[in-house]
Amino acid sequence: MAPVEPSFKPPYYAVIFSNQRTEVDAGYGDMAARMVALAAQQPGYLGVDSVRNTEGSGITVSYWRTLDDIAAWRRNTEHAEARNAGRAQWYRDFKVRIAKVEREYGWHVDAGPADPAA
Amino acid sequence: MAPVEPSFKPPYYAVIFSNQRTEVDAGYGDMAARMVALAAQQPGYLGVDSVRNTEGSGITVSYWRTLDDIAAWRRNTEHAEARNAGRAQWYRDFKVRIAKVEREYGWHVDAGPADPAA
Repeated sequence: MAPVEPSFKPPYYAVIFSNQRTEVDAGYGDMAARMVALAAQQPGYLGVDSVRNTEGSGITVSYWRTLDDIAAWRRNTEHAEARNAGRAQWYRDFKVRIAKVEREYGWHVDAGPADPAA
Repeated sequence: MAPVEPSFKPPYYAVIFSNQRTEVDAGYGDMAARMVALAAQQPGYLGVDSVRNTEGSGITVSYWRTLDDIAAWRRNTEHAEARNAGRAQWYRDFKVRIAKVEREYGWHVDAGPADPAA
């Protein structure tokens, strides 16, 4: 069961990666799984939310303690190679946004219907 | 075709809504479409990215010019009613994160394989 309480204590940073895939599937799943596992080993990594629909649209939001942590992950060699392969084969279009999370709250059905942000 | 150039000029704000749906589908699609249309009419609205997968996990990121614009949208009566209905029926679990977008860049396959952030 997911926690009702916020996961991370603001301020922290989010990398919002919204993207559209190509039709090329070969190698994509392995790369994506590897990047999730590799990111989780990096200093300052907090977590990730990732969803892709059947039309190939995806949003992945990764959470990091500091901007320096994000910059260090960007310089990771295997990550850089995966991004290069992504532009060569797997992605048609993407946007990357770096954002400072100032506030968060969560809600779970077990908490009942009251507004968690009221 | 999606634009290569960034859509919005930082700084601006993102509301990252990550969620898990219940099995209840009745009314959900109409409400979701109505909220997208209604949000787009609000002052300070910039845009939205939204994806849901077949397991009922969703991420919706809406973009706004200021925190005041987000607060005003939150006070919208129809929006508040939709959130109440969401907690009563359609959502099992969610998190809301308010974040200040400090940097963004985009890439499209037509731009060729070079790293857009190099």
